[in-house]
Amino acid sequence: MRLRNKPWAAQVISEHPEIVVPNPAECKGRWSELFNNQHPIHVEVGTGKGRFVTRVGEKHPEWNVIGMEKYDSVILTGVERLIESPQENVKLIKDDVEKVTDFFAHKEIDRLYINFTDPWPKNRHEKRRLTHEGFLKKYMEVLKDNGEIHFKTDNQGLFEYSLASLSQFGLKLKNVSLDLHNSDLEDNIMTEYEERYVEKGMRIFRLEAYR
Amino acid sequence: MRLRNKPWAAQVISEHPEIVVPNPAECKGRWSELFNNQHPIHVEVGTGKGRFVTRVGEKHPEWNVIGMEKYDSVILTGVERLIESPQENVKLIKDDVEKVTDFFAHKEIDRLYINFTDPWPKNRHEKRRLTHEGFLKKYMEVLKDNGEIHFKTDNQGLFEYSLASLSQFGLKLKNVSLDLHNSDLEDNIMTEYEERYVEKGMRIFRLEAYR
Ligand SMILES: C[S@@+](CC[C@H](N)C(=O)[O-])C[C@H]1O[C@@H](n2cnc3c(N)ncnc32)[C@H](O)[C@@H]1O
Ligand SMILES: C[S@@+](CC[C@H](N)C(=O)[O-])C[C@H]1O[C@@H](n2cnc3c(N)ncnc32)[C@H](O)[C@@H]1O
Repeated sequence: MRLRNKPWAAQVISEHPEIVVPNPAECKGRWSELFNNQHPIHVEVGTGKGRFVTRVGEKHPEWNVIGMEKYDSVILTGVERLIESPQENVKLIKDDVEKVTDFFAHKEIDRLYINFTDPWPKNRHEKRRLTHEGFLKKYMEVLKDNGEIHFKTDNQGLFEYSLASLSQFGLKLKNVSLDLHNSDLEDNIMTEYEERYVEKGMRIFRLEAYR
Repeated sequence: MRLRNKPWAAQVISEHPEIVVPNPAECKGRWSELFNNQHPIHVEVGTGKGRFVTRVGEKHPEWNVIGMEKYDSVILTGVERLIESPQENVKLIKDDVEKVTDFFAHKEIDRLYINFTDPWPKNRHEKRRLTHEGFLKKYMEVLKDNGEIHFKTDNQGLFEYSLASLSQFGLKLKNVSLDLHNSDLEDNIMTEYEERYVEKGMRIFRLEAYR
Protein backbone atom coordinates (compact mmCIF):
# COMPACT_ATOMS: atom_id res chain seq x y z
CA MET A 1 0.00 0.00 0.00
CA ARG A 2 1.64 3.25 -1.10
CA LEU A 3 1.05 5.87 1.51
CA ARG A 4 0.21 9.40 0.54
CA ASN A 5 0.57 11.94 3.23
CA LYS A 6 -2.88 13.27 3.98
CA PRO A 7 -2.56 15.53 7.02
CA TRP A 8 -6.32 16.08 7.14
CA ALA A 9 -7.09 12.36 7.44
CA ALA A 10 -6.79 12.21 11.25
CA GLN A 11 -9.19 15.07 11.59
CA VAL A 12 -11.85 13.62 9.28
CA ILE A 13 -11.55 10.34 11.20
CA SER A 14 -11.95 11.98 14.60
CA GLU A 15 -14.94 13.94 13.37
CA HIS A 16 -16.79 10.72 12.52
CA PRO A 17 -16.94 8.58 15.63
CA GLU A 18 -20.10 6.95 14.23
CA ILE A 19 -17.87 5.44 11.50
CA VAL A 20 -14.40 5.04 13.02
CA VAL A 21 -14.92 3.82 16.56
CA PRO A 22 -12.84 6.25 18.66
CA ASN A 23 -12.01 3.95 21.55
CA PRO A 24 -12.51 0.38 20.42
CA ALA A 25 -11.08 -1.09 23.65
CA GLU A 26 -14.20 0.22 25.37
CA CYS A 27 -16.33 -1.84 23.01
CA LYS A 28 -14.63 -5.11 23.96
CA GLY A 29 -17.42 -7.57 24.76
CA ARG A 30 -20.01 -4.91 23.95
CA TRP A 31 -20.08 -4.59 20.16
CA SER A 32 -23.66 -5.83 20.09
CA GLU A 33 -24.63 -2.85 22.26
CA LEU A 34 -22.89 -0.49 19.85
CA PHE A 35 -24.69 -2.00 16.84
CA ASN A 36 -27.83 -2.26 18.94
CA ASN A 37 -28.61 -5.78 17.77
CA GLN A 38 -27.44 -9.38 18.17
CA HIS A 39 -26.30 -9.92 14.59
CA PRO A 40 -23.15 -11.90 13.88
CA ILE A 41 -19.93 -9.90 13.89
CA HIS A 42 -17.59 -10.13 10.89
CA VAL A 43 -14.17 -8.49 10.99
CA GLU A 44 -11.76 -7.80 8.14
CA VAL A 45 -8.17 -7.32 9.26
CA GLY A 46 -6.11 -5.01 7.04
CA THR A 47 -9.19 -3.56 5.41
CA GLY A 48 -7.36 -0.89 3.41
CA LYS A 49 -9.86 1.51 1.85
CA GLY A 50 -12.76 -0.56 3.13
CA ARG A 51 -14.37 -1.48 -0.19
CA PHE A 52 -14.89 -5.07 0.94
CA VAL A 53 -16.52 -4.29 4.29
CA THR A 54 -18.93 -1.80 2.78
CA ARG A 55 -19.92 -4.34 0.11
CA VAL A 56 -20.37 -7.14 2.65
CA GLY A 57 -22.44 -4.80 4.84
CA GLU A 58 -24.61 -3.82 1.89
CA LYS A 59 -25.22 -7.38 0.77
CA HIS A 60 -25.74 -8.64 4.31
CA PRO A 61 -27.76 -6.24 6.44
CA GLU A 62 -28.14 -9.19 8.85
CA TRP A 63 -24.41 -9.03 9.71
CA ASN A 64 -22.34 -6.42 11.53
CA VAL A 65 -19.10 -5.74 9.72
CA ILE A 66 -15.94 -4.13 11.10
CA GLY A 67 -12.80 -3.25 9.16
CA MET A 68 -9.42 -2.80 10.88
CA GLU A 69 -6.74 -0.70 9.20
CA LYS A 70 -3.72 0.94 10.73
CA TYR A 71 -3.15 3.85 8.37
CA ASP A 72 -5.13 7.10 8.55
CA SER A 73 -4.43 8.00 4.96
CA VAL A 74 -5.68 4.63 3.70
CA ILE A 75 -8.77 4.20 5.84
CA LEU A 76 -9.77 7.77 4.94
CA THR A 77 -11.25 6.65 1.62
CA GLY A 78 -13.49 4.22 3.47
CA VAL A 79 -14.56 6.92 5.89
CA GLU A 80 -15.42 9.27 3.03
CA ARG A 81 -17.46 6.54 1.36
CA LEU A 82 -19.40 5.93 4.57
CA ILE A 83 -19.99 9.66 5.07
CA GLU A 84 -21.44 9.75 1.56
CA SER A 85 -23.55 6.58 2.00
CA PRO A 86 -23.99 5.77 5.68
CA GLN A 87 -24.25 2.09 6.65
CA GLU A 88 -25.40 1.36 10.18
CA ASN A 89 -23.95 -2.15 10.17
CA VAL A 90 -20.43 -1.12 9.13
CA LYS A 91 -17.75 0.29 11.47
CA LEU A 92 -14.04 0.88 11.15
CA ILE A 93 -11.20 0.59 13.64
CA LYS A 94 -8.07 2.57 12.93
CA ASP A 95 -5.43 0.54 14.67
CA ASP A 96 -3.01 -2.33 14.40
CA VAL A 97 -4.36 -5.88 14.09
CA GLU A 98 -1.81 -6.75 16.80
CA LYS A 99 -4.39 -5.30 19.18
CA VAL A 100 -7.37 -7.36 18.04
CA THR A 101 -7.62 -9.06 21.45
CA ASP A 102 -7.75 -5.66 23.15
CA PHE A 103 -10.79 -4.76 21.10
CA PHE A 104 -12.76 -8.00 21.02
CA ALA A 105 -13.70 -10.36 23.83
CA HIS A 106 -13.22 -14.11 23.87
CA LYS A 107 -15.44 -15.65 21.15
CA GLU A 108 -17.05 -12.33 20.22
CA ILE A 109 -16.39 -12.65 16.45
CA ASP A 110 -18.22 -14.92 14.03
CA ARG A 111 -15.97 -14.56 11.03
CA LEU A 112 -12.61 -13.03 10.27
CA TYR A 113 -11.51 -12.01 6.76
CA ILE A 114 -7.92 -11.63 5.62
CA ASN A 115 -7.82 -10.20 2.10
CA PHE A 116 -4.74 -9.48 -0.02
CA THR A 117 -2.65 -8.82 3.00
CA ASP A 118 0.98 -7.76 2.66
CA PRO A 119 3.05 -10.89 1.83
CA TRP A 120 6.25 -9.91 3.67
CA PRO A 121 8.23 -12.33 1.51
CA LYS A 122 11.46 -12.16 3.50
CA ASN A 123 11.87 -14.83 6.15
CA ARG A 124 12.93 -12.32 8.74
CA HIS A 125 9.55 -10.58 8.36
CA GLU A 126 7.52 -13.76 8.77
CA LYS A 127 5.99 -12.57 12.04
CA ARG A 128 4.37 -9.63 10.28
CA ARG A 129 2.29 -11.84 7.99
CA LEU A 130 -1.31 -11.74 9.13
CA THR A 131 -1.43 -15.55 8.88
CA HIS A 132 1.55 -16.02 11.18
CA GLU A 133 1.00 -18.15 14.25
CA GLY A 134 1.22 -15.07 16.48
CA PHE A 135 -1.81 -13.55 14.77
CA LEU A 136 -3.64 -16.87 14.52
CA LYS A 137 -3.45 -17.21 18.30
CA LYS A 138 -5.16 -13.87 18.69
CA TYR A 139 -7.80 -14.60 16.06
CA MET A 140 -8.69 -17.90 17.70
CA GLU A 141 -9.04 -16.12 21.02
CA VAL A 142 -11.70 -13.75 19.69
CA LEU A 143 -13.33 -16.13 17.20
CA LYS A 144 -16.36 -18.19 18.18
CA ASP A 145 -15.92 -21.99 18.33
CA ASN A 146 -17.70 -22.40 15.02
CA GLY A 147 -16.18 -19.20 13.62
CA GLU A 148 -14.30 -19.13 10.34
CA ILE A 149 -11.32 -17.40 8.80
CA HIS A 150 -11.78 -16.53 5.12
CA PHE A 151 -8.54 -15.76 3.35
CA LYS A 152 -7.90 -14.50 -0.19
CA THR A 153 -4.68 -13.49 -1.86
CA ASP A 154 -3.02 -13.15 -5.24
CA ASN A 155 0.33 -13.98 -3.66
CA GLN A 156 1.33 -17.58 -4.24
CA GLY A 157 4.14 -17.57 -1.71
CA LEU A 158 1.89 -16.16 0.99
CA PHE A 159 -0.79 -18.72 0.19
CA GLU A 160 1.68 -21.61 0.37
CA TYR A 161 2.95 -20.26 3.67
CA SER A 162 -0.57 -19.82 5.02
CA LEU A 163 -1.69 -23.36 4.12
CA ALA A 164 1.19 -24.65 6.25
CA SER A 165 0.73 -22.09 9.01
CA LEU A 166 -3.04 -22.60 9.40
CA SER A 167 -2.86 -26.39 9.29
CA GLN A 168 0.09 -26.48 11.69
CA PHE A 169 -1.96 -24.36 14.05
CA GLY A 170 -4.49 -27.20 14.00
CA LEU A 171 -7.07 -25.52 11.78
CA LYS A 172 -8.99 -27.42 9.15
CA LEU A 173 -9.44 -26.13 5.60
CA LYS A 174 -12.44 -26.13 3.30
CA ASN A 175 -13.58 -24.54 0.06
CA VAL A 176 -10.00 -24.16 -1.06
CA SER A 177 -9.74 -22.54 -4.47
CA LEU A 178 -6.47 -22.20 -6.35
CA ASP A 179 -8.04 -20.10 -9.07
CA LEU A 180 -11.05 -18.35 -7.61
CA HIS A 181 -12.20 -16.54 -10.71
CA ASN A 182 -12.17 -19.71 -12.78
CA SER A 183 -14.00 -21.75 -10.16
CA ASP A 184 -17.66 -22.19 -9.42
CA LEU A 185 -17.67 -20.38 -6.09
CA GLU A 186 -20.76 -18.22 -5.87
CA ASP A 187 -21.33 -15.04 -3.93
CA ASN A 188 -17.74 -13.88 -4.02
CA ILE A 189 -17.47 -10.29 -2.84
CA MET A 190 -14.59 -8.47 -4.48
CA THR A 191 -12.09 -6.38 -2.57
CA GLU A 192 -10.37 -3.33 -3.96
CA TYR A 193 -7.10 -5.15 -4.59
CA GLU A 194 -8.91 -8.14 -5.99
CA GLU A 195 -10.50 -6.01 -8.71
CA ARG A 196 -7.10 -4.78 -9.80
CA TYR A 197 -5.56 -8.22 -9.89
CA VAL A 198 -8.48 -9.84 -11.64
CA GLU A 199 -8.38 -7.15 -14.32
CA LYS A 200 -4.76 -8.06 -14.92
CA GLY A 201 -5.79 -11.70 -15.28
CA MET A 202 -3.95 -12.78 -12.17
CA ARG A 203 -4.80 -15.96 -10.31
CA ILE A 204 -6.55 -15.53 -6.96
CA PHE A 205 -6.16 -18.09 -4.16
CA ARG A 206 -8.77 -18.57 -1.46
CA LEU A 207 -9.51 -20.77 1.53
CA GLU A 208 -11.72 -21.05 4.57
CA ALA A 209 -10.27 -22.28 7.87
CA TYR A 210 -12.07 -23.48 10.97
CA ARG A 211 -11.48 -25.37 14.22
CA MET B 1 -3.94 -44.77 -17.36
CA ARG B 2 -4.89 -46.35 -20.68
CA LEU B 3 -4.78 -50.08 -20.35
CA ARG B 4 -3.37 -52.21 -23.11
CA ASN B 5 -4.18 -55.85 -22.92
CA LYS B 6 -0.92 -57.69 -22.34
CA PRO B 7 -1.79 -61.32 -21.69
CA TRP B 8 1.85 -62.19 -20.97
CA ALA B 9 2.10 -59.62 -18.15
CA ALA B 10 0.77 -61.93 -15.42
CA GLN B 11 3.29 -64.58 -16.38
CA VAL B 12 6.30 -62.24 -16.37
CA ILE B 13 5.17 -60.95 -12.96
CA SER B 14 4.82 -64.44 -11.49
CA GLU B 15 8.22 -65.43 -12.84
CA HIS B 16 9.88 -62.62 -10.88
CA PRO B 17 8.98 -63.02 -7.23
CA GLU B 18 12.22 -61.20 -6.34
CA ILE B 19 10.66 -58.07 -7.91
CA VAL B 20 6.88 -58.38 -7.48
CA VAL B 21 6.33 -59.81 -4.02
CA PRO B 22 4.01 -62.78 -4.64
CA ASN B 23 2.21 -62.84 -1.31
CA PRO B 24 2.62 -59.43 0.31
CA ALA B 25 0.25 -60.28 3.18
CA GLU B 26 2.91 -62.69 4.41
CA CYS B 27 5.38 -59.82 4.62
CA LYS B 28 3.16 -57.79 6.95
CA GLY B 29 5.37 -56.71 9.84
CA ARG B 30 8.34 -58.45 8.25
CA TRP B 31 9.45 -56.26 5.35
CA SER B 32 12.77 -55.65 7.06
CA GLU B 33 13.42 -59.38 6.93
CA LEU B 34 12.65 -59.44 3.22
CA PHE B 35 15.01 -56.54 2.53
CA ASN B 36 17.44 -58.01 5.03
CA ASN B 37 18.16 -54.66 6.69
CA GLN B 38 16.54 -52.08 8.98
CA HIS B 39 16.35 -49.25 6.46
CA PRO B 40 13.32 -46.97 6.39
CA ILE B 41 10.44 -48.18 4.24
CA HIS B 42 8.98 -45.83 1.62
CA VAL B 43 5.83 -46.81 -0.29
CA GLU B 44 4.37 -45.25 -3.42
CA VAL B 45 0.67 -45.98 -3.87
CA GLY B 46 -0.48 -46.09 -7.50
CA THR B 47 3.04 -46.44 -8.79
CA GLY B 48 2.08 -46.99 -12.43
CA LYS B 49 5.13 -48.04 -14.43
CA GLY B 50 7.37 -47.60 -11.41
CA ARG B 51 9.69 -44.92 -12.75
CA PHE B 52 9.55 -42.98 -9.50
CA VAL B 53 10.29 -45.90 -7.16
CA THR B 54 13.26 -47.06 -9.21
CA ARG B 55 14.66 -43.53 -9.23
CA VAL B 56 14.14 -43.07 -5.48
CA GLY B 57 15.76 -46.45 -4.86
CA GLU B 58 18.73 -45.52 -7.03
CA LYS B 59 19.26 -42.17 -5.38
CA HIS B 60 18.69 -43.54 -1.89
CA PRO B 61 20.32 -46.93 -1.37
CA GLU B 62 19.73 -46.29 2.35
CA TRP B 63 15.93 -46.60 1.88
CA ASN B 64 13.74 -49.55 0.95
CA VAL B 65 11.16 -48.56 -1.65
CA ILE B 66 7.95 -50.36 -2.54
CA GLY B 67 5.53 -49.46 -5.34
CA MET B 68 1.88 -50.57 -5.29
CA GLU B 69 -0.01 -50.82 -8.58
CA LYS B 70 -3.16 -52.75 -9.33
CA TYR B 71 -2.78 -53.39 -13.06
CA ASP B 72 -0.59 -56.15 -14.49
CA SER B 73 -0.23 -54.46 -17.83
CA VAL B 74 0.97 -51.20 -16.23
CA ILE B 75 3.32 -52.57 -13.59
CA LEU B 76 4.87 -54.79 -16.27
CA THR B 77 7.07 -51.95 -17.53
CA GLY B 78 8.48 -51.52 -14.03
CA VAL B 79 9.12 -55.24 -13.77
CA GLU B 80 10.95 -55.26 -17.10
CA ARG B 81 13.09 -52.31 -16.01
CA LEU B 82 14.02 -54.11 -12.79
CA ILE B 83 14.84 -57.32 -14.68
CA GLU B 84 17.17 -55.26 -16.86
CA SER B 85 18.76 -53.37 -13.94
CA PRO B 86 18.11 -55.15 -10.66
CA GLN B 87 17.72 -53.03 -7.52
CA GLU B 88 17.83 -54.85 -4.23
CA ASN B 89 16.08 -52.06 -2.35
CA VAL B 90 13.06 -51.82 -4.68
CA LYS B 91 10.04 -54.13 -4.63
CA LEU B 92 6.61 -54.00 -6.25
CA ILE B 93 3.20 -55.11 -5.04
CA LYS B 94 0.59 -55.83 -7.66
CA ASP B 95 -2.61 -55.15 -5.80
CA ASP B 96 -5.14 -52.53 -4.80
CA VAL B 97 -4.12 -49.79 -2.37
CA GLU B 98 -7.36 -50.63 -0.55
CA LYS B 99 -5.40 -53.52 0.92
CA VAL B 100 -2.44 -51.52 2.22
CA THR B 101 -3.29 -52.46 5.83
CA ASP B 102 -3.28 -56.15 4.87
CA PHE B 103 0.28 -55.82 3.64
CA PHE B 104 1.86 -53.50 6.21
CA ALA B 105 1.78 -53.62 9.98
CA HIS B 106 0.92 -50.76 12.30
CA LYS B 107 3.64 -48.06 11.94
CA GLU B 108 5.74 -50.14 9.55
CA ILE B 109 6.07 -47.40 6.90
CA ASP B 110 8.26 -44.30 7.13
CA ARG B 111 6.93 -42.40 4.14
CA LEU B 112 4.08 -42.75 1.70
CA TYR B 113 4.06 -41.14 -1.74
CA ILE B 114 0.96 -40.34 -3.79
CA ASN B 115 1.93 -39.13 -7.25
CA PHE B 116 -0.37 -38.01 -10.04
CA THR B 117 -3.12 -40.25 -8.86
CA ASP B 118 -6.40 -40.47 -10.78
CA PRO B 119 -8.46 -37.37 -9.90
CA TRP B 120 -11.92 -38.97 -10.06
CA PRO B 121 -13.51 -35.56 -10.57
CA LYS B 122 -17.12 -36.64 -10.13
CA ASN B 123 -18.48 -36.28 -6.61
CA ARG B 124 -19.92 -39.74 -6.67
CA HIS B 125 -16.42 -41.16 -7.16
CA GLU B 126 -14.91 -39.21 -4.28
CA LYS B 127 -14.18 -42.38 -2.29
CA ARG B 128 -11.87 -43.63 -5.00
CA ARG B 129 -9.49 -40.70 -4.68
CA LEU B 130 -6.32 -41.86 -2.96
CA THR B 131 -6.54 -38.81 -0.66
CA HIS B 132 -10.06 -39.64 0.50
CA GLU B 133 -10.56 -40.06 4.24
CA GLY B 134 -11.06 -43.82 3.77
CA PHE B 135 -7.53 -44.17 2.37
CA LEU B 136 -6.04 -41.68 4.83
CA LYS B 137 -7.27 -43.83 7.71
CA LYS B 138 -5.40 -46.78 6.28
CA TYR B 139 -2.24 -44.80 5.58
CA MET B 140 -2.16 -43.45 9.12
CA GLU B 141 -2.53 -46.98 10.45
CA VAL B 142 0.62 -48.17 8.66
CA LEU B 143 2.64 -44.92 8.88
CA LYS B 144 5.06 -44.29 11.71
CA ASP B 145 4.18 -41.48 14.14
CA ASN B 146 6.73 -39.22 12.50
CA GLY B 147 5.97 -40.59 9.04
CA GLU B 148 5.04 -38.33 6.15
CA ILE B 149 2.78 -38.34 3.13
CA HIS B 150 4.29 -36.69 0.06
CA PHE B 151 1.74 -35.80 -2.57
CA LYS B 152 2.19 -34.42 -6.09
CA THR B 153 -0.35 -33.80 -8.81
CA ASP B 154 -1.00 -31.73 -11.88
CA ASN B 155 -4.71 -31.76 -11.12
CA GLN B 156 -5.87 -28.55 -9.47
CA GLY B 157 -9.25 -29.90 -8.41
CA LEU B 158 -7.67 -32.94 -6.79
CA PHE B 159 -5.14 -30.75 -5.00
CA GLU B 160 -7.85 -28.42 -3.67
CA TYR B 161 -9.82 -31.44 -2.51
CA SER B 162 -6.76 -33.00 -0.89
CA LEU B 163 -5.81 -29.85 1.04
CA ALA B 164 -9.26 -29.97 2.63
CA SER B 165 -9.30 -33.72 3.08
CA LEU B 166 -5.85 -33.97 4.69
CA SER B 167 -6.37 -31.00 7.01
CA GLN B 168 -9.84 -32.18 8.01
CA PHE B 169 -8.30 -35.52 8.88
CA GLY B 170 -6.14 -33.58 11.35
CA LEU B 171 -2.91 -33.68 9.37
CA LYS B 172 -0.56 -30.74 9.20
CA LEU B 173 0.96 -29.49 5.96
CA LYS B 174 4.45 -28.30 5.11
CA ASN B 175 6.56 -27.53 2.08
CA VAL B 176 3.46 -26.73 0.07
CA SER B 177 4.29 -25.75 -3.49
CA LEU B 178 1.70 -24.46 -5.93
CA ASP B 179 4.14 -24.46 -8.82
CA LEU B 180 6.80 -27.02 -8.10
CA HIS B 181 8.92 -26.52 -11.18
CA ASN B 182 9.12 -22.79 -10.62
CA SER B 183 9.96 -23.10 -6.95
CA ASP B 184 13.23 -23.63 -5.15
CA LEU B 185 12.54 -27.13 -3.90
CA GLU B 186 15.66 -29.21 -4.31
CA ASP B 187 16.02 -32.94 -4.83
CA ASN B 188 12.72 -33.39 -6.61
CA ILE B 189 12.50 -36.85 -8.15
CA MET B 190 10.36 -36.89 -11.27
CA THR B 191 7.65 -39.45 -11.91
CA GLU B 192 6.68 -40.71 -15.35
CA TYR B 193 3.53 -38.58 -15.47
CA GLU B 194 5.35 -35.58 -14.08
CA GLU B 195 7.81 -35.62 -16.99
CA ARG B 196 4.96 -35.52 -19.47
CA TYR B 197 3.16 -32.68 -17.72
CA VAL B 198 6.27 -30.63 -17.16
CA GLU B 199 7.15 -30.94 -20.84
CA LYS B 200 3.75 -29.51 -21.64
CA GLY B 201 4.47 -26.62 -19.28
CA MET B 202 1.75 -27.63 -16.84
CA ARG B 203 1.77 -26.49 -13.24
CA ILE B 204 2.60 -29.14 -10.65
CA PHE B 205 1.22 -28.96 -7.09
CA ARG B 206 2.97 -30.61 -4.16
CA LEU B 207 2.65 -30.94 -0.39
CA GLU B 208 3.92 -32.90 2.56
CA ALA B 209 1.52 -33.95 5.32
CA TYR B 210 2.31 -35.21 8.79
CA ARG B 211 0.71 -35.83 12.19
C1 LIG C 1 -2.62 -4.81 0.40
S1 LIG C 1 -3.81 -3.95 1.33
C2 LIG C 1 -5.34 -4.81 0.99
C3 LIG C 1 -6.54 -4.04 1.39
C4 LIG C 1 -7.88 -4.76 1.25
N1 LIG C 1 -7.99 -5.84 2.22
C5 LIG C 1 -8.12 -5.26 -0.16
O1 LIG C 1 -8.11 -6.50 -0.35
O2 LIG C 1 -8.34 -4.45 -1.07
C6 LIG C 1 -3.41 -4.48 2.97
C7 LIG C 1 -3.80 -3.47 4.04
O3 LIG C 1 -3.62 -4.09 5.30
C8 LIG C 1 -3.13 -3.12 6.20
N2 LIG C 1 -2.41 -3.83 7.26
C9 LIG C 1 -1.37 -4.67 7.12
N3 LIG C 1 -0.95 -5.10 8.33
C10 LIG C 1 -1.76 -4.51 9.24
C11 LIG C 1 -1.81 -4.55 10.64
N4 LIG C 1 -0.96 -5.30 11.35
N5 LIG C 1 -2.78 -3.84 11.25
C12 LIG C 1 -3.64 -3.09 10.52
N6 LIG C 1 -3.62 -3.02 9.21
C13 LIG C 1 -2.69 -3.71 8.56
C14 LIG C 1 -2.20 -2.27 5.34
O4 LIG C 1 -2.00 -1.01 5.91
C15 LIG C 1 -2.97 -2.22 4.02
O5 LIG C 1 -3.82 -1.11 3.96
C1 LIG D 1 -2.03 -41.60 -13.35
S1 LIG D 1 -1.05 -42.99 -12.90
C2 LIG D 1 0.39 -42.26 -12.19
C3 LIG D 1 1.50 -43.22 -12.08
C4 LIG D 1 2.75 -42.71 -11.34
N1 LIG D 1 2.50 -42.51 -9.93
C5 LIG D 1 3.32 -41.46 -11.97
O1 LIG D 1 3.24 -40.40 -11.32
O2 LIG D 1 3.83 -41.51 -13.07
C6 LIG D 1 -1.95 -43.59 -11.50
C7 LIG D 1 -1.74 -45.08 -11.27
O3 LIG D 1 -2.31 -45.40 -10.01
C8 LIG D 1 -2.95 -46.66 -10.14
N2 LIG D 1 -3.99 -46.75 -9.12
C9 LIG D 1 -5.03 -45.92 -8.96
N3 LIG D 1 -5.79 -46.32 -7.94
C10 LIG D 1 -5.21 -47.44 -7.44
C11 LIG D 1 -5.53 -48.31 -6.38
N4 LIG D 1 -6.62 -48.12 -5.64
N5 LIG D 1 -4.71 -49.35 -6.16
C12 LIG D 1 -3.59 -49.54 -6.91
N6 LIG D 1 -3.25 -48.75 -7.93
C13 LIG D 1 -4.05 -47.70 -8.19
C14 LIG D 1 -3.50 -46.67 -11.55
O4 LIG D 1 -3.74 -47.99 -12.01
C15 LIG D 1 -2.40 -45.96 -12.33
O5 LIG D 1 -1.47 -46.84 -12.85
